[in-house]
Amino acid sequence: MSTPIAFSTNGNAAAFTVATGRGFQYGDGVFRTVLKFDGRIIDFDAQLLRLRDDAARLGIRIEEAGLAQLRDEVILVTAATETGAIKLVLTRRDGGRGYRSASGEADRHILLYAAPKYPSEYWSDGIVAAMSTIVIAQQPALAGVKHLNRLEQVLAYQAAPADAEEVILCDVGGHVICGGRSNLFCVIGGVLTTPDLSQAGVHGHMRDKVLRLASELGIRTRVAPIPRRHFAAADEVFVTNSLIGIWPLKRVDSRSWRTPGEVTSRLAQALAHPVLA
Amino acid sequence: MSTPIAFSTNGNAAAFTVATGRGFQYGDGVFRTVLKFDGRIIDFDAQLLRLRDDAARLGIRIEEAGLAQLRDEVILVTAATETGAIKLVLTRRDGGRGYRSASGEADRHILLYAAPKYPSEYWSDGIVAAMSTIVIAQQPALAGVKHLNRLEQVLAYQAAPADAEEVILCDVGGHVICGGRSNLFCVIGGVLTTPDLSQAGVHGHMRDKVLRLASELGIRTRVAPIPRRHFAAADEVFVTNSLIGIWPLKRVDSRSWRTPGEVTSRLAQALAHPVLA
Repeated sequence: MSTPIAFSTNGNAAAFTVATGRGFQYGDGVFRTVLKFDGRIIDFDAQLLRLRDDAARLGIRIEEAGLAQLRDEVILVTAATETGAIKLVLTRRDGGRGYRSASGEADRHILLYAAPKYPSEYWSDGIVAAMSTIVIAQQPALAGVKHLNRLEQVLAYQAAPADAEEVILCDVGGHVICGGRSNLFCVIGGVLTTPDLSQAGVHGHMRDKVLRLASELGIRTRVAPIPRRHFAAADEVFVTNSLIGIWPLKRVDSRSWRTPGEVTSRLAQALAHPVLA
Repeated sequence: MSTPIAFSTNGNAAAFTVATGRGFQYGDGVFRTVLKFDGRIIDFDAQLLRLRDDAARLGIRIEEAGLAQLRDEVILVTAATETGAIKLVLTRRDGGRGYRSASGEADRHILLYAAPKYPSEYWSDGIVAAMSTIVIAQQPALAGVKHLNRLEQVLAYQAAPADAEEVILCDVGGHVICGGRSNLFCVIGGVLTTPDLSQAGVHGHMRDKVLRLASELGIRTRVAPIPRRHFAAADEVFVTNSLIGIWPLKRVDSRSWRTPGEVTSRLAQALAHPVLA
């Protein structure tokens, strides 16, 4: 699994400019992970728009034509693969050495991997997670953006106990923010609550999809700071991302939940996301 | 300047594994910039040790043999170049897709660039800098480490006025921390003071060199949090890094200093760093 099935930069397999570029040197770019399942790229266009909007937050422009080009490249690169995890990356094109010599143009990268596989119980019974010892930093200039500076997540997984499939990160104020590779939801007094991401965290596509779905199902939703004790007192908790859909949390450190919770089940059923087992 | 003169990964020019690796995807690595001037790599061994120590902070191991190998590779890659800027990068070797599939082993990368050139007045009269609108995040788990997550610096330069050669970053508490690509020093009441970097910032090699030099010259030194108003009230201010040595600050926004200050001059003279003009 350490090498992707396929890789492309601006439509070519050449990687030299990437290796020495701003993506590698500064993490100066953004990404989105998209699932291709049974020949269909799930929420492809919505994810492309998120990628573009994230890039814009960093001052990296990709025009309609560039986005269409990326779309075509993805279809080409993934044509022979029915099911896979596609990582779309936009980096700022190089203007030279140093932070300053930056252009506002985007280089397009596609990495195609075999889809991950997990026990099917992860979807039905949930997973074990652990509260991270890494406190996520507050940086409003980058909050919400799925950018390439992901060392906090790397450190969080490194410090996590072996039995934890996911880590939960809190900010310095003791609010839960997100999972290491997921967004976080709590059902608190019947209200589906997910952390405010204005200071830290990543605005995942699946997060919005679940919030929208909840509204359609008549479930009340709320986006707000969630103190750790409210999280621990929640009736149901689950994590989401574009590969897994929804995974209930059955245990976080010493706190256990009976899974699957009622609200979680309704959402998972309505979402009908593929089980990658 | 957008392509390096030379590039090597683990001693080879092959870049594919780098392009798709953890350096690119997460910024999961560390770097140091070293100056080769007139055939001599300045403070080469000290910089290699810093690189190793930074890597260790991220749980990336490089043994003595690996460090010696990197040393040999640098000598080989830079052999034909008398004067240049060498970027040494260690990334965590891939174990597969996802944050978790990480090894503790290091991949060694070398990027050799033509040395930058600046007006010689930068060394004699100083530079203009600007206070950044980007507030640097507090992250003790990464503070001090010269890692590959440098988006804050990218954004800081992006937001800087065109006449500013350097940007000065403050933390959320209003303390000055560093320049965008430099460490910061203030002379306050005759004491050479540089910001505490336990919450944010990069522990540059030149910073330590200047502190040591000051002690040898009998100049009192202090490492402490520096509120922005103390910075503005300082008698002399200057920035340092391994390429430039010492640059006095002659103006930061509306605050000007008469340059070069006495302490700055003594240090610069004793440092005898090359002027890249």
